This record gives sequence, C-alpha cells and structure tokens, in this order.
Amino acid sequence: MSEADFIARLRGIATDPAARGLADDVAVWEGLVLTHDMIVEGIHFLPDEAPQDVAWKLVAVNLSDLAAKGAAPLGVLVGYSLGDAAWDKAFADGLDTALRRFGLLLLGGDTVRVPAGAPRSFGLTAIGRAPEGGAPARSGARPGDQIWVTGTIGNAGVGLAMRLGEIEPNETCLAAYRRPQPQLTFGQAVVPHVHAMMDVSDGLLIDAQRMAEASGCRFGLMLEAVPLSAALLAVRPDVVDTRLAAATAGDDYQLLFAADPAKAPMIREIADGLDVPVTVVGHAGVGEGVVLTHKAQRVPLPERLGFMH
Amino acid sequence: MSEADFIARLRGIATDPAARGLADDVAVWEGLVLTHDMIVEGIHFLPDEAPQDVAWKLVAVNLSDLAAKGAAPLGVLVGYSLGDAAWDKAFADGLDTALRRFGLLLLGGDTVRVPAGAPRSFGLTAIGRAPEGGAPARSGARPGDQIWVTGTIGNAGVGLAMRLGEIEPNETCLAAYRRPQPQLTFGQAVVPHVHAMMDVSDGLLIDAQRMAEASGCRFGLMLEAVPLSAALLAVRPDVVDTRLAAATAGDDYQLLFAADPAKAPMIREIADGLDVPVTVVGHAGVGEGVVLTHKAQRVPLPERLGFMH
Repeated sequence: MSEADFIARLRGIATDPAARGLADDVAVWEGLVLTHDMIVEGIHFLPDEAPQDVAWKLVAVNLSDLAAKGAAPLGVLVGYSLGDAAWDKAFADGLDTALRRFGLLLLGGDTVRVPAGAPRSFGLTAIGRAPEGGAPARSGARPGDQIWVTGTIGNAGVGLAMRLGEIEPNETCLAAYRRPQPQLTFGQAVVPHVHAMMDVSDGLLIDAQRMAEASGCRFGLMLEAVPLSAALLAVRPDVVDTRLAAATAGDDYQLLFAADPAKAPMIREIADGLDVPVTVVGHAGVGEGVVLTHKAQRVPLPERLGFMH
Repeated sequence: MSEADFIARLRGIATDPAARGLADDVAVWEGLVLTHDMIVEGIHFLPDEAPQDVAWKLVAVNLSDLAAKGAAPLGVLVGYSLGDAAWDKAFADGLDTALRRFGLLLLGGDTVRVPAGAPRSFGLTAIGRAPEGGAPARSGARPGDQIWVTGTIGNAGVGLAMRLGEIEPNETCLAAYRRPQPQLTFGQAVVPHVHAMMDVSDGLLIDAQRMAEASGCRFGLMLEAVPLSAALLAVRPDVVDTRLAAATAGDDYQLLFAADPAKAPMIREIADGLDVPVTVVGHAGVGEGVVLTHKAQRVPLPERLGFMH
C-alpha cells in the first residue's frame, strides 16, 4: 500500500462533505476551517535547523492551508515530541513568536517522550473561521479561468540549497526557506473573487496538477510567467531549467488560485492594496492535466513535479 | 528543561481561558471541546501491537478526554506516519472500525514519511460538542465532595503484563489494554451532576493528585474501595500491593469525578441505567495532596503514582 493507496483508503472512510474527500488540505465544518499538518526531522526539516525556525514552519505551513481557504486563523493545538532541554526551550520561544505574530491562541495539545534517537516529529492542528461566502475548494476552477500565483516561486528551494552549502547564501532565499510567510491577509481579501484556491507547498507544478485534476480541467502554464525573485536570479541564470527547478521545488507557501478573467482588475487592486505581487501564470481549459510552455514552445513535464512527502 | 518545565513554558503562551491553562487535557472553545493526543511506538504502544489495536487506542484515548468533559464526539483529524504497506492497511481498517463504532467523522489530517527505522508516531485531534451546562474542569472539586470512578481500575496494567508474557493471559484484561472503552455515554449523562471530572489515563493516584491539586483540595482515597475486576483478581491476590499496582498502572480510561454527596442517588441511578459500575473511592477535604488509606490504616504514597509520558 503506497501513500496514495493509504490516502485512497482513508477517503473511503472520510465520506462526510466536511472532509472534502481529503482532497483539499482542510476540512470545512460548521463555519470552521480545520487543518492538521505534521513535520518530521530529516523529511521536512534538517536535523540542524534552528528550533525557532522549526516552530515557525510548523505554524506557517498550517496557516498557509487556512490562507488558501480565505480563513481567519483562530487557534492551534500542538503535538510535540520532547527532545533535549535547550532545543525544547528554543522551540517554545519560536512557537511563542509565531503565535503572537499571527494572533493565534494556543488551545492545547500533547507532549510525548520518544525513544532515544528517534527523529523529532511535530503535529499542529490549526482552526480558522471560514469566510462568509464559504471556503473555496481546489476543485472549482473552470475552463476560461486565469491561473494566478502570489509572490514569487522557488525562493525556498534555493534557500534549501543555500542551507546545504550548495550555493552562496543570500538573505531573501534563506528567509523564504526558514520563515515562510502564509498569505493570510491576501487570502481573506481575494476569496470572494476566486473559483478555486490552494497553497503551493509541494511545488507549483504538482499543486497546479492537483487543482487541474480536482477541477476536471486542463491547465496551460507559461513557464516564462512564473514569477522569480531578484534574489533567486542573482544566483541562478534565467533559463528553462531554473524555471523548472523553481516550479517543482516546493515550500513556497504562496497561493495558487483560479478566477474568471473579468475579476482580474479587482484582484490586482486587492493585491496592490496589500502590496502582494500577483501574477497570471496560466489558463484553465477543457481537458485534463498540465500543459507547460515556455515562450509559446511546448516544454515536456519533468518526471518529478514536486515534493512528495 | 524537563517536560514539566516545557509545559510550564507553554502555559505562559496559552493564556486564553479556552486553553484552561493547559491543565485540563482539553480546550473548551465556542461550544466545542478540542483535544489532541499523540501515541508513539515504544512509549505508548508495543512495537508488535496489532495495527488495528493501535488505531483503536489512538481514537479511544482522545475520546476519553471528551468523555471526561461530557462532550458528544463529532470528528477527528489524524496525523499519520507511513510505515510498511501491510501495517498501514491494517491501521486504516482499525481506524475505520473505531470511527464507525463512535460515530465520528474523519475530517482530515496529514500523512508523512519518516526516516527509515524511526518509531511510528501518530497524532489525533478530536472535536466534540460541549455539554449545554458547560464542560467541567478538573479544578472544580470542593471539600465535602465524594470522589468517584467508573468501571474497574488496573485491568489494562495487568493486560500489559499479560502482553509481555509476565502472567497467564485472560481476555478481559487483554481487551482492557488493547481496546479501551471511553465512557462517553456515562460522561454525557453524569456531567450536570459533577463538580470536576477527568479521565484516568496515567494512573488513578496520579490523576487524583492532579485533580486535588487543580481543585485546591486534599483527596482521601480508600484503597480497599478501588474497584478491581474479577479478571484481575483471578491473576493477582487481593492485597495492598495489588491495589497499589492497579491504582498506578494507567491506561484505564475510566472517569474520575467529584460530586456533592447529595447527588449520589442520582449518579447511581444514571449509572444503573447505563449499566456502568460506579464506585466512591474517596472524599475531598480541606488541604492538599492525596492521602491514602487501606481499611482505615494510612498507606504511604508510592514513589511512582502513575505513568509519566
């Protein structure tokens, strides 16, 4: 049983509409948006990561799921595996910082011992208030929609390479990797105007493919439109491979959304008001899957579309 | 920083009343009761435990926290670390069974890979509806209250010894260890009549001490009154050491509650109607801590009052 088989089995259990077929990163239930994400040492963070950054990331990855539903974050429950004293203290400091930053209540949770040598493993359940008009699924994109992303793509992937000593570090990319910023304010503001929204956590291509599949559409994505930061382009040449790497790197925690082209002026106005860059990276059409182009030339999809974890 | 220090640090963060000072196993918030418990291989379950039983236990330990607040269970989110295919499939089957048994929605969650050789580690967030009159804290016991427990105490501890091959197995004790039964129906029925309630998960003595401390009372507990099952007494002599072992073993998932003695007839009627045994095991008085007697003889508190994890 692969992970996909296991999730398929869970889908057979999660039959209530609130669970959204386990296909939407969140449950939407009685006006609340609920999400639970785990992060594991050696899989989702490096063993030598600063504990404050791990705490931040645990909070941010969950809030990014709330942002993608236009939800207002309310509170969290934390599952924590105890390690050494100094690490635990620094983690608690980081958790405090992150919760204050996002105005979140720490509602509860659990701390457990783990066997010696076990990797650290943390879970967080985040609860938010669903937007009045309802939380958009990832399945609502329609042929004719524009496909948008917030911010820039690929910084965190380059930041990870910098952390691993593979390239000369710069602060922007390192910060994107260490301290992802969930797009909560923009998510709440744009939510009435979108047909579908999700966060880009595993890679733009894989997440776009998931949205296309859930929506029963074909997404045409323009690689040249994928927004890259100056910080990324300072260390990588602007070639197709760089753009493919950025679009498959993951950990961006930007929002990917589909909206009617008639909404574009409104979306740009919201984005300008919040100083959040937004970019049209493609279009939804009839069909299925993701079709990739670079300056109108077809580009084969890479074998690996993103981070599978 | 010990676990206690770490939790004290988190308490400094969890200042909202909903979190109940992280002293109540649950948060009570907007009419909901929320709890999150983790279980870790090698700490909370044996590596050779049947996966169906692990799934049951993950659900049951969380529902026991809801039962102790008189909450009606609604749904869960599950954090799951993937292992081998057969194990995962059996776990999903067990989860399905447990969720159906308790009428719970699977709302969502997360599945993650873990590094090779890492112990299995699972988290579950359970959400219930708070009772109309409010969810009792563990801090509400008052001098003069009777201290009650449901069911029998110590079966699971003996069941664990049976699992480890230390004593001849019997089905009752093994089942208590493998498939704990949260006292949901009784919890909901008795909740209007109690001053304080919590579940007995780490051991009767340690959990009673926690309730006494939170309530600012002294609890006098009568060891001879601690209800032991016929199945336990079939393998252990009825001596003080057996009773101390039962009262410190943990994993009982019975309810411990404090109520005015005037409520006793009502409590017995509710219990009879639901066929749940209830027993007065002690009394709350002025002072602090737990005082233990056996047939009116003072018994020193054992050094270890329960399972610390």
